Amino acid sequence: MISKERILDLLSAYDTENLCLATVCSHTSLQIFHGAKAEGLRTIGLITSEQQRAIYDAFPAAKPDEFVDVGDGAIPYEELADKNALLIPHGSIVEYAGRGLEDAPLPVLGNRQSLMWERDRRKMFEWMKAAGLQTPAILDPDKIDRPCVVKHPGAKGGRGYAIVHSPEEFHAKFENKDVMVQEYLVGVRAYPHYFYSPLSKEGYRTADGHLELLSIDRRFESNVDESYRTMMAGVPIRPSFTVVGNQGLVIRESLLSDMLSMGRDAAEAAERLFGGIPGPFCLELICDENLQFYCFEISARIVAGTNIYPEGSPYSCYVFGEPMSMGRRIAREVKTAKEMGKLGKIVY
Amino acid sequence: MISKERILDLLSAYDTENLCLATVCSHTSLQIFHGAKAEGLRTIGLITSEQQRAIYDAFPAAKPDEFVDVGDGAIPYEELADKNALLIPHGSIVEYAGRGLEDAPLPVLGNRQSLMWERDRRKMFEWMKAAGLQTPAILDPDKIDRPCVVKHPGAKGGRGYAIVHSPEEFHAKFENKDVMVQEYLVGVRAYPHYFYSPLSKEGYRTADGHLELLSIDRRFESNVDESYRTMMAGVPIRPSFTVVGNQGLVIRESLLSDMLSMGRDAAEAAERLFGGIPGPFCLELICDENLQFYCFEISARIVAGTNIYPEGSPYSCYVFGEPMSMGRRIAREVKTAKEMGKLGKIVY
Amino acid sequence: MISKERILDLLSAYDTENLCLATVCSHTSLQIFHGAKAEGLRTIGLITSEQQRAIYDAFPAAKPDEFVDVGDGAIPYEELADKNALLIPHGSIVEYAGRGLEDAPLPVLGNRQSLMWERDRRKMFEWMKAAGLQTPAILDPDKIDRPCVVKHPGAKGGRGYAIVHSPEEFHAKFENKDVMVQEYLVGVRAYPHYFYSPLSKEGYRTADGHLELLSIDRRFESNVDESYRTMMAGVPIRPSFTVVGNQGLVIRESLLSDMLSMGRDAAEAAERLFGGIPGPFCLELICDENLQFYCFEISARIVAGTNIYPEGSPYSCYVFGEPMSMGRRIAREVKTAKEMGKLGKIVY
Repeated sequence: MISKERILDLLSAYDTENLCLATVCSHTSLQIFHGAKAEGLRTIGLITSEQQRAIYDAFPAAKPDEFVDVGDGAIPYEELADKNALLIPHGSIVEYAGRGLEDAPLPVLGNRQSLMWERDRRKMFEWMKAAGLQTPAILDPDKIDRPCVVKHPGAKGGRGYAIVHSPEEFHAKFENKDVMVQEYLVGVRAYPHYFYSPLSKEGYRTADGHLELLSIDRRFESNVDESYRTMMAGVPIRPSFTVVGNQGLVIRESLLSDMLSMGRDAAEAAERLFGGIPGPFCLELICDENLQFYCFEISARIVAGTNIYPEGSPYSCYVFGEPMSMGRRIAREVKTAKEMGKLGKIVY
Repeated sequence: MISKERILDLLSAYDTENLCLATVCSHTSLQIFHGAKAEGLRTIGLITSEQQRAIYDAFPAAKPDEFVDVGDGAIPYEELADKNALLIPHGSIVEYAGRGLEDAPLPVLGNRQSLMWERDRRKMFEWMKAAGLQTPAILDPDKIDRPCVVKHPGAKGGRGYAIVHSPEEFHAKFENKDVMVQEYLVGVRAYPHYFYSPLSKEGYRTADGHLELLSIDRRFESNVDESYRTMMAGVPIRPSFTVVGNQGLVIRESLLSDMLSMGRDAAEAAERLFGGIPGPFCLELICDENLQFYCFEISARIVAGTNIYPEGSPYSCYVFGEPMSMGRRIAREVKTAKEMGKLGKIVY
Repeated sequence: MISKERILDLLSAYDTENLCLATVCSHTSLQIFHGAKAEGLRTIGLITSEQQRAIYDAFPAAKPDEFVDVGDGAIPYEELADKNALLIPHGSIVEYAGRGLEDAPLPVLGNRQSLMWERDRRKMFEWMKAAGLQTPAILDPDKIDRPCVVKHPGAKGGRGYAIVHSPEEFHAKFENKDVMVQEYLVGVRAYPHYFYSPLSKEGYRTADGHLELLSIDRRFESNVDESYRTMMAGVPIRPSFTVVGNQGLVIRESLLSDMLSMGRDAAEAAERLFGGIPGPFCLELICDENLQFYCFEISARIVAGTNIYPEGSPYSCYVFGEPMSMGRRIAREVKTAKEMGKLGKIVY
């Protein structure tokens, strides 16, 4: 992994009056570009095919100022650094740039180490445990004694997840792939979207900064989230968990205290384990019938569920007196850091 | 129950230029404080523990102007009256203050008698019947001949509800507790949020005032609202109905006429039975496949589903030319009543 | 069907400085009137009963400037033409005016031929096929060899749909009615709301104009969309599909490209088949676990799912710098066409 010093060196050569935000044209890019415009920052869209441009014809208020073609599979980091670009990581970048991101000679919003802790499910559970979060049990495939979800590594949007109930079923479905076997938890899902700032003087206090809870979503997965319709139709169905979209959600106000403290604990554990997670993150939670939360995954960057709220959410309006998406919040933090001369605190 | 005269006496001593709105820091308090700020009213947050303050650090635009500690279990009504406070009731106050609320020497928004009609399920059904609403059948536990929901008294957020199919199953699960056995209705749920004003000159006309339909929600309950996922995973599940949150909903425009007339009928029945329900209320409805509505519960105060809409809803925008939450609507009514010299009409 | 020339004749007599928008008071009328007001256009509400007026008392910001009683079943087209009215078609008009709409001597927003292609399910499938959209298989009732949905003609809001698994089951339930038997597709539903403009210079390009994707919804149907709750309660249930309302949805950003190109293909096929579909339309889609879309229906006019977004959606904000509902978009197009002297391009 490229050193933080190297990134700070690169940053020191930046013309900070002409910063711009670059990201791959997918996942949450419309929101990120739209938010950057609201904050007056320039944007670069990294496209892998010409068709992607056409999407921005449909959504002109979210069109980046410039496109850079990365169709050959390589992000031109040096060219982006010359343009004073900060890379905004999202789920598709994690998949697209892969391990190359570790060595990318370009400032990345947040802490690129967190993306490595997100990619490796065992490290992710280490992080969740260090934060004191309740988690599903992780089982050895040969000791499966209850319903379990089997998950592939990385941010695959749920594709290929499967349910197994025994070692035999596991081995019939998986040939010792690099998967994780998690106990199936009974409850309902909720995905709070946090923004952690080491710079802000407002928000929910953590050891080294402040936390904001900007919104919450539920994922909408095919085919499982309409499986009851299929079953009612008398059609045999094997559940699949491919994320298709997201829907808005508010939770009981009395649960906000738990949601905030879980976010704080995750941010503080990140600080201790690998130097913190400036920027957006998400805890993927199950809430059981006794209103206990279990965390089964952390996304250490902006999540697609924030796309529900490009003009703010039922929570962000209690934080800001203006429409504030997660994309705009990112741009706001970049501006603030620049003004404070502390960009080095929010990138790596 | 303290007399209305006594409350009017208390109110007559108020400095109405310095009214403030007080409520317990839970349920819909963020929305209520946020709405009061928009209307320029002062707010007091009643907290039961120090941790509750921290939530408002996370949501500064919804932070009350002042906190009063009620951790010892007693709301200091006299102190609040000295501060010219009106108490805004919500689901958690109903639970927290309990029967003490009946005698509280403090003006309560709305009509405190309605909270008693809400708490006692038999009286609630009397109210719904008087309004001519279609309701589920109420069954004698020993005559259960179809699937039924068994409900505890009070606003418990659905916790502990259970389904039974026979007297034997009932007695195995419940030891003659103070519960109500309701026929299980087949359909989908919808919760319209009304505001009834005896002062307003606009809105849907009732015998003695005007009604507004400000929004609609669906409740999101653990574990039942993701029970299909659990079942698909081959995991045995016993349904539970603990409310975790809420999601937005619009209904067919052709059903609005029924929704408005049901709200009117409930408001007019309240007028006849116990003097009316100024302020927010909610009908908890099932809509069957023939688009017939059945009411299975009334909440005679603001409901948590309104938390989806702190900046207005797909219905409130047709009523007001500005963002209008239920919390803000309450504050607006208080201001209007003050200006008209009619605060006595909207509190008790 | 009345000729386009005749409609253009009628239009040529219009006082275009005093255009107004007329529609039947149901379906999406609140949104249409509210949007027209925002654009400064006059509105006429066609009511079938006096009770309908009262709804607009509840929603004054969406009240039409004038009501015209059509309770006797006949829309007074001549009177409306005298008032310089354009008729805005929606699902209830399609049902209400029925085939009479074909000959109505009044300019109708969009292309009235499209409504005929929508009403006849066989023509609708011809249209979808011409657009190259993936569709469910259509089966001969006597060759049913898999689970199928049986659908009635017209926009019936899902009422009376049924699932059958064999020719025997079909004949037991349907007596050779004018129904269509569609293969049951496994996945989740998503309903994108498009606006096609032959006038606009911005948007997603099509052969003859530009397309906008303004929002997406999911339908909420009774009893099927809470059937899992009923099943959990141990209550026998026969699924029904009566649309009760709608809920918001965003989809994976990487699926927007497909959604836009499907909309373009449908608009271009309409151009080739019957002269185009200026104005709103909706594709009713299933997204399967491999993120493949199947189109099972087209609504060639504004759909009720747009009612979720009277002040804009998570997509419209990327198109317009102001709150833009589908109703307002219609009014905007009328204004633009008037200013360009091209009303004839957007009505028939």
